[in-house]
Amino acid sequence: MDTKAEVEDGRDKKTTLVKKCLLCTGDMLHLDTLLQEQWWVLQLLVWGLRGVTRVILANNPLSGVLIMAALFWDSPWQGVLGSVGVLCSTLTAIITGQDRFEVRGGLHGFNGMLVSLLMGVFSSAGDWYWPLLIPACLGSATCVLLFSSLSPLLDRWDLPVAVFPFNLTIVLFLLCNGPQHPYFPRHWAVPPGAEDVNATQLSILQFLQGIPLGVGNIYGCSALGPSLLILGAVLLYSPLLAIHALLGSAIGALAGLSMGVRHSCLYTGLSGFNGALGCMVVGGLFFTFSWRTHLFAIASAFFSAYMDIALSNLLGTVGLPACSWGATIVGTLMMLMTGTLKAYRIPTGQVKSPEQNLRSQNQWEAGSPSDRESTDV
Amino acid sequence: MDTKAEVEDGRDKKTTLVKKCLLCTGDMLHLDTLLQEQWWVLQLLVWGLRGVTRVILANNPLSGVLIMAALFWDSPWQGVLGSVGVLCSTLTAIITGQDRFEVRGGLHGFNGMLVSLLMGVFSSAGDWYWPLLIPACLGSATCVLLFSSLSPLLDRWDLPVAVFPFNLTIVLFLLCNGPQHPYFPRHWAVPPGAEDVNATQLSILQFLQGIPLGVGNIYGCSALGPSLLILGAVLLYSPLLAIHALLGSAIGALAGLSMGVRHSCLYTGLSGFNGALGCMVVGGLFFTFSWRTHLFAIASAFFSAYMDIALSNLLGTVGLPACSWGATIVGTLMMLMTGTLKAYRIPTGQVKSPEQNLRSQNQWEAGSPSDRESTDV
Amino acid sequence: MDTKAEVEDGRDKKTTLVKKCLLCTGDMLHLDTLLQEQWWVLQLLVWGLRGVTRVILANNPLSGVLIMAALFWDSPWQGVLGSVGVLCSTLTAIITGQDRFEVRGGLHGFNGMLVSLLMGVFSSAGDWYWPLLIPACLGSATCVLLFSSLSPLLDRWDLPVAVFPFNLTIVLFLLCNGPQHPYFPRHWAVPPGAEDVNATQLSILQFLQGIPLGVGNIYGCSALGPSLLILGAVLLYSPLLAIHALLGSAIGALAGLSMGVRHSCLYTGLSGFNGALGCMVVGGLFFTFSWRTHLFAIASAFFSAYMDIALSNLLGTVGLPACSWGATIVGTLMMLMTGTLKAYRIPTGQVKSPEQNLRSQNQWEAGSPSDRESTDV
Repeated sequence: MDTKAEVEDGRDKKTTLVKKCLLCTGDMLHLDTLLQEQWWVLQLLVWGLRGVTRVILANNPLSGVLIMAALFWDSPWQGVLGSVGVLCSTLTAIITGQDRFEVRGGLHGFNGMLVSLLMGVFSSAGDWYWPLLIPACLGSATCVLLFSSLSPLLDRWDLPVAVFPFNLTIVLFLLCNGPQHPYFPRHWAVPPGAEDVNATQLSILQFLQGIPLGVGNIYGCSALGPSLLILGAVLLYSPLLAIHALLGSAIGALAGLSMGVRHSCLYTGLSGFNGALGCMVVGGLFFTFSWRTHLFAIASAFFSAYMDIALSNLLGTVGLPACSWGATIVGTLMMLMTGTLKAYRIPTGQVKSPEQNLRSQNQWEAGSPSDRESTDV
Repeated sequence: MDTKAEVEDGRDKKTTLVKKCLLCTGDMLHLDTLLQEQWWVLQLLVWGLRGVTRVILANNPLSGVLIMAALFWDSPWQGVLGSVGVLCSTLTAIITGQDRFEVRGGLHGFNGMLVSLLMGVFSSAGDWYWPLLIPACLGSATCVLLFSSLSPLLDRWDLPVAVFPFNLTIVLFLLCNGPQHPYFPRHWAVPPGAEDVNATQLSILQFLQGIPLGVGNIYGCSALGPSLLILGAVLLYSPLLAIHALLGSAIGALAGLSMGVRHSCLYTGLSGFNGALGCMVVGGLFFTFSWRTHLFAIASAFFSAYMDIALSNLLGTVGLPACSWGATIVGTLMMLMTGTLKAYRIPTGQVKSPEQNLRSQNQWEAGSPSDRESTDV
Repeated sequence: MDTKAEVEDGRDKKTTLVKKCLLCTGDMLHLDTLLQEQWWVLQLLVWGLRGVTRVILANNPLSGVLIMAALFWDSPWQGVLGSVGVLCSTLTAIITGQDRFEVRGGLHGFNGMLVSLLMGVFSSAGDWYWPLLIPACLGSATCVLLFSSLSPLLDRWDLPVAVFPFNLTIVLFLLCNGPQHPYFPRHWAVPPGAEDVNATQLSILQFLQGIPLGVGNIYGCSALGPSLLILGAVLLYSPLLAIHALLGSAIGALAGLSMGVRHSCLYTGLSGFNGALGCMVVGGLFFTFSWRTHLFAIASAFFSAYMDIALSNLLGTVGLPACSWGATIVGTLMMLMTGTLKAYRIPTGQVKSPEQNLRSQNQWEAGSPSDRESTDV
């Protein structure tokens, strides 16, 4: 009797542990109810951390902590810039009276964070150049304005605003200055199709290393350790999303290889990050995961990567980077697509982590709508 | 009595002959019912041939045969590329579950065909460079994706997708490579406003020859014989459309002359094809033919041609052609126009050949809606 | 008794005088009823003069007279071009059957006028080059087509067409020709970020002079006297609008200073006019005036000015000016914005002068909807 009870006790403990661990994955919406009566600053922190993960299509404050750690590990200055960006845009959203649920979900933080990070990446003034915080703050605030303006436009087709505000703002900022700018000098972006001066035999090892780096490059980070930590943060949110991120980055690298881009683009992961984003959008996030959506995710990754090469060559003629225009445009187009793919589309307001999307769908199909969200369908 | 019977018999035979001939003109929708129980491959062939004619705004399988003959006559390699393009995109549409009526009407073939043809035209690797079939197939498939994505956007204003997918895809492909590209080298497009090195007196004969060549240039074909055959194919579909094609091409050449473009643009028909397309869209196809729409068609041709010169000069700075962007944008704008022109607009779903449009309109106005479609109005 | 009656009489006279003066300010809609039975040419003149003021977001025929005087004062040739443009586009609108109320409100005149004026400004053929009237007329007519096509697109979001037709047409025209063009040679636009060859110490006086010049630059006018007269015309229509014009121009100059643009841009007012337009749109015209909208107007002015610098640098690489793209895009985005600002948005069809907007709002809030328009709300 004693041993049986002990075994049962052990089982219970194990289940409780697993349940506790599972509480830290996915969207962690239970945290919002927990925080409702806490200090406002703590709430703001969680909103900001959600915003940090929104960049990579996740939504989990713990993943946000890991990603911030990765950014500070890669470069403390970039960490500071990212923090300023996400806080500044979240605060602007609160001041200008944006929708409370959007602010709480971190939807007003990620564009501002990316703008700040990329301003740092493209600045040629070096680290700890404090005046850069002025355009970082203004740029983050501009993202809120653009997010708020673009959403009524895109809502008509139930499309998310995604990173359009970031892409617009950073291109405008970079156009305002140049390599010889007196206040904010910047690097001149070299198109991937430019002639490779130091062209040597392709190194397989560096090529393979470029695949995880492609995931890190979504945050403008090009060191291996932090990139793996970022990948870990995605894994915490959703294993399915992490797999698609790696797969997409590999596809992007292959696309780059097939178009003969400069080797440095392959090695640093620049070829991969648009593919990764394009793959994640279709593979499980905005579409219920299945073998069909998986095939479409692969197609989306290829298309995103090729569009990135095309746009980088175009914008590179005036020294601009293509940022994530490729993945953003292709992802938006995939969501508009009619035919087979449309049957798997999840309404934008009901998108959760890929695993939860899959569960909602299964419950709905099984005719046992125990989940509150799925009954709304 | 005998002679009278003979005459009547002769008349009957003549009427039957005329009726049989008339069966080969216009949209030939009766063919679809005939084919319903035939082999799938035969059906696919007809869908493909309809797609071939959709490029020039027609919709008639026999015209498609003539156009394919013209392409093979001009260059067998271009004929192969065109066939691959139209088949590949039609098959992609079937696999990705696009609307059956759209596939049957050839709406998923023409963009893919154009992409393949233009890849051949701009390739500097010469004829029978087999690796080009890879991007040709991928590009054709991409057109289906873009067609399917853009249609929900444009449907809101009852606009057709037209050749937007082709224009987007070919520009992206050409941006991905360049004259020194290791796999897919291409010609560098020279803007029409560039200085004319071999500028001589304008040859009237070559200028006039450029007008029918403008019609052939819609398929990237710049030989006189095939161009005339293509014009004949349009004539078979609808004489009104053929007249507007020639008129538009002439207007385009005049617009080119007025802006002092390079003479080679005028002689090869490159100045004319946007004007031709712009003229055809308004003159009878999407608008009921009348003297008012005829005037608007002339205005549309001029505007298309000027916009083509402007866009060619802009895109030419990075070595890109303007393809049919000019005519596509202007045609779309004309369909949006309010005022007098709007009264003549035919809803996109009810567009048939110009002659049939005119007949439907007359019957509708006469109050005798014997035509099934016109009762739906 | 006598003195009392005299005083009352004097008061009455004074009130009548003030009322008469007030009749000349604002939208002067009473003029339309007065003119209803007058000669058609007189009506056309008033429609044209309303169109002239629409450029600077006003709507008052008397202001139109002042502005035409300013243009003829600055350069008689520019005055002729402007008159041709406004008349040509208004007549095109009548011929193509555009909405009568739009034509009467001058909505079909201002784009054509701007196109003609800017063709003159950028022409390097000198004054009184008569052939320029051909593209001026064609360009003005094109603006009507574009206005009529873009309005169904923008109506979906209750957005005004604004100066999109002008910006599109002038860019297309300038792309068609170049500095060595045989018929219509033009100046090559220098981007504001280009290196300043004659860079000297900033002259405060010239900088301050650039602020009113920024208002004049909306009409392509860069002399101080005419610019002040234009500002006076705005003051006649609405003091609130005039203050925002000056404020916006000053903000634009500050933005230019912060990005280190060439000094000539600051001195000639080129840095200021986008800021002025961006400030006027939000400050009182399309939004009810309040301290909140005033802050948003300042933000809009900064954003317009920075976007102008960015776009000027981009388009300057191919020798094109950014015209008023910056202010037009930012203004449109501000009107789409959700959150606090949305509560102050006035439906496009009910927009009047800032003062009248404010009065309508107050009456509506006071619950005494004596004004006909406000009861419709």
